[in-house]
Order: sequence, then C-alpha cells, then structure tokens
Amino acid sequence: MSDSAGSDDIQALIALMARLPGLGPRSARRIVLHLIRRRSGAMVQLAEVMARVSETSRECLRCGNITDADLCPICTDARRANGELCVVEDVADLWAMERGRAFRGRYHVLGGTLSALDEVGPEDLRIPTLIGRVAEEGVREVILALDATVEGQTTAHYIAEALAPLGVSVTGLAQGVPVGGELDYLDDGTISAALRARRAF
Amino acid sequence: MSDSAGSDDIQALIALMARLPGLGPRSARRIVLHLIRRRSGAMVQLAEVMARVSETSRECLRCGNITDADLCPICTDARRANGELCVVEDVADLWAMERGRAFRGRYHVLGGTLSALDEVGPEDLRIPTLIGRVAEEGVREVILALDATVEGQTTAHYIAEALAPLGVSVTGLAQGVPVGGELDYLDDGTISAALRARRAF
Repeated sequence: MSDSAGSDDIQALIALMARLPGLGPRSARRIVLHLIRRRSGAMVQLAEVMARVSETSRECLRCGNITDADLCPICTDARRANGELCVVEDVADLWAMERGRAFRGRYHVLGGTLSALDEVGPEDLRIPTLIGRVAEEGVREVILALDATVEGQTTAHYIAEALAPLGVSVTGLAQGVPVGGELDYLDDGTISAALRARRAF
Repeated sequence: MSDSAGSDDIQALIALMARLPGLGPRSARRIVLHLIRRRSGAMVQLAEVMARVSETSRECLRCGNITDADLCPICTDARRANGELCVVEDVADLWAMERGRAFRGRYHVLGGTLSALDEVGPEDLRIPTLIGRVAEEGVREVILALDATVEGQTTAHYIAEALAPLGVSVTGLAQGVPVGGELDYLDDGTISAALRARRAF
C-alpha cells in the first residue's frame, strides 16, 4: 500500500484518522482524500485549530468541564450560581445538557462511573470534591444527570447516600417516553417506567 | 453554545470536523472530545501530519495520482510499465484497485466523469492527456475501470471511441456477482448481467 496510495504521510494520516471513534479505514480514506482535494482550505485550518486546541485546552479546576482557563465560563458566570448543581458523568453529557438549554445552574463532571469490575472507586472520580463543593458553595439541590444504566444508577445511589448527611436536596432526571418517541420502538423498561410515572393530562 | 461547550477554538474544531464527509455535529463532538482527552498523543500528531500533508501533497503530473513529488511512485516504477493502462475516475478508485493487488500496470486518473447536466466535457477531465499517453508510452491495453453507473459507462464509451483510431485494445471490468455476494440481495441488473456473462464451471 505505502508505495501506491500517496506518500507515507498520507498513509500515516489515514491510520491516525481511522483510530478516531466512529471512523474506520474506509471512512478515514474518504476524509483524507476530501481534505487533500480542498487542501488550500480545510486541511490547513483543521491542522491549525487542532494544534491550538491541543495546546490550550484543559480541565476546569472546579467542575471538570473543558476550557482554556483555570475556571470554565460556567463556573465564572455569577448568574449560574443559583444553588443548583448538576452532576454528569463526562463532558459530553455536560454539552448535551447545555444544548437542552433548560438547566441554568452549575455542573460537576465526575469523569466516569463507579465500577467494581474496572476497579473505579469514589476517589478515582470527582466525588470527594463534589462533597466539598456542596458544603462550600451553598448548593440547595444536586441533580444527578447520570446515564440510566446499571453503572450510572449505582453511582447515583452512592452519591445520594454520601450527600445525605449534608441535608441537601438530591434529585434525578425523570424517566419516560423520549420526545418524538414512538411507543412501538421503545423497550419494555422505558414503557413501564413511563407508566409508573404517569401524570394527570 | 460557545459560552459553555469549551472554548471558541473547540467550537471551531467541531464545526470544521462536522463538515467532513460522513461526519455530522454529533460524531464531530465525539471525536473532538476523544482527542482532547488524549491530547498528549493523538491530536498533536494529527495536527502535525495534516500540516505536512497539506504542504507537500500534489497531483502526479503524468497520471493524476496523489503524491509528494512530480511523478508518483507508480509512474516512476519501471516494473509497472507493462503496457497496461487502467483508467479510473478518481484517486479513491486508484487506491481501491491497488488494494485488490491484481493490477500491475499504470493508472490514469480522469478526475471525474462526463456529464451534460453539470457541463463536464472531455477537456475538463484528463481525456486529452490519456490519448497522448497511449501514443507515447507504448500502451497495448487500456482497461476502463469506471463505475457501473450511467455517467461512468457514458464516459467509458466516449473514451473507447476516442481511442479507436489508435488501434489499442480497450477493455472494461467484468460485471457479475460480487465475491461473497448473496443472490437474494443483488439487484436484478446485476443478476441478469452475471447470467449473460456466465462461464463453463
């Protein structure tokens, strides 16, 4: 291959791309060819922004969000100190919550879920600092926005118990039918959860 | 969004990524988060290789393959001057042929197909230089490895007619059942083409 499909650098670029989540050799080749064809534009820009992001991006010292300063824009925005703290597993979940535009408080990114199998204990996550923040920042309500999976819910229960002595209100996201969801395509667990949590119309 | 999901650079990186073929906002976010988490490794490397490729890669002056020199490794390899010239639509097809490891001659990349609708004529493709190469390089056989689509086959017929006066043998790829293909899933056109071209067992 390396003697035919372009230069060694092109081969290396395809190999690096193919290792990204959701991509494989075929889609990586397609992207690299696309970039080479338009190289005056996209590839130079992409290389520059990537170099800059890899240089500047780091974790917010308080909440674990990704930012380019000591504290992220949410932690430095005084309007978001409304007494609500939303606990998420990782930064992707924080971004998803922000896209929902419904939550106006601050976040705490755990960096994973508890797992006996993978030997992930509370100290491996940002659970000790979560307890510290609840005491220091005058948090009234901790919203556990964790995945509705076994690991997510185990972690949620552990945190709820750890926060119990602090007298803070601990809540979780509602379970039910997704907006636009068709009953026919939902799993049985979701349907029975939605039925148990039914509301007056 | 830009005040919450990381820095402006991260937003810019996601936007650039989301424009790549096969990616969208969701997969771009996933890739960028993945890269940021492992920034010591993959992102710096990716940025460097991309900058290098965008700097050095260009088209082979003879066949149109992507390379980092005036002529590509296939055009400079004397063993591949075996009198066979394979005509492909674009570099992705050349790479696909090379992966097949069956063809040992040289290539000619057209850079597209003829299209009355998009006003692509023979001069917009590398068809004049193809005719020149056949005369100059002692080509015995031109293999038209073009897509089995209307545009691909129209282009193939045009080239076959243009080459007729040169007395060179012009062939096309066989049509039939793909290796590992299940009859049940094949379209009718493929089945009837495979039947018409049936061989003794």
